[in-house]
Amino acid sequence: MKIVLVGANGTIGNYVRKTLEEAQHEVIQVGRKSGDFHLDIESPESIEKTFKKIGSFDALVNASGDIAFAPLQKLTAADWAKSLQSKLMGQINLVTQAIPYINERGSFTLVSGILSEQPIFAGVAATTINAAVEGFVRAAATELPKGLRINVVSPTLLEDSLKNYGAFFPGFIPTSGAAVAAAFKKSVMGVQTGQVFKVY
Amino acid sequence: MKIVLVGANGTIGNYVRKTLEEAQHEVIQVGRKSGDFHLDIESPESIEKTFKKIGSFDALVNASGDIAFAPLQKLTAADWAKSLQSKLMGQINLVTQAIPYINERGSFTLVSGILSEQPIFAGVAATTINAAVEGFVRAAATELPKGLRINVVSPTLLEDSLKNYGAFFPGFIPTSGAAVAAAFKKSVMGVQTGQVFKVY
Repeated sequence: MKIVLVGANGTIGNYVRKTLEEAQHEVIQVGRKSGDFHLDIESPESIEKTFKKIGSFDALVNASGDIAFAPLQKLTAADWAKSLQSKLMGQINLVTQAIPYINERGSFTLVSGILSEQPIFAGVAATTINAAVEGFVRAAATELPKGLRINVVSPTLLEDSLKNYGAFFPGFIPTSGAAVAAAFKKSVMGVQTGQVFKVY
Repeated sequence: MKIVLVGANGTIGNYVRKTLEEAQHEVIQVGRKSGDFHLDIESPESIEKTFKKIGSFDALVNASGDIAFAPLQKLTAADWAKSLQSKLMGQINLVTQAIPYINERGSFTLVSGILSEQPIFAGVAATTINAAVEGFVRAAATELPKGLRINVVSPTLLEDSLKNYGAFFPGFIPTSGAAVAAAFKKSVMGVQTGQVFKVY
């Protein structure tokens, strides 16, 4: 399969790339500033331009998207707007704009996160927006044309992120990058659609 | 209790007003163009202005918020932006801006809808945004100051809406306005927080 991987250079993206390459797939690495092609998921124009350059492909995997972290009363309108534009609308735009380019029976795999179900302090935008991404996937699966599938992977904290972020996730048991990558592989190479693959 | 009811003139708002007034509460009716006070939930400035006029209160109930309905591939950037600004950010802004005005141990009750869990055709924005509202409530409940509570009521189709919207909800069993209003009453007068009260 020819697989477009957005956010290829991130912590999760790196694990996903390795796992998909080990399964003999061609992985097109896409990043904001690194990789084979560049795009900014906050810009529908840049998404459009990049898909035109890449041409047809069999699967789109996204491992990118930013969300602001701040206590509820400190989250500004700009924090909310930026977070919605990146992790929610960025992923929605990736999907809807890819439809003309992706091959029949292809698949989309998005990313949410454990905070969707399990809040942490200062994580209200993350809970809100990860829940929205999961809702989008649940509904989009029922309308996608061309036999396309769509799922979302919801990881807990990665072991690699424990040092930097562990203090914000008290009592959360971290998972390996390999386990998260396996969930992405299950979505890309499996048969399910409309699902949240929880890695926790 | 002095209860601010936003969307008082809508189908659900009317049932909620009657139920809360029967329970001997003072209901301040707020609407875009009707009621005791006016506000546009898409405008943070108009929310701020109206709260200043109303002064302190014990509970805020919202029964308003618009979402665009269209097939996935027909939903425009403007449809998404308007829907996010109204039913998601409108409710988030109502809550965060009310904090200085609402009394200790007061409560917020928002509204989502059955589409959060059960998609219908052309309802992808509704599933996405209702899920986001429920996520917001789940997380905000953990951070609200002053002993404040927050819940969300998720109704199925109302019997009153069957004639106009029933065709879009095949096999959905409609509910009475009284049942929906009872869920709002449970949130306002009860003790729970961070909950989705499903009326279906």
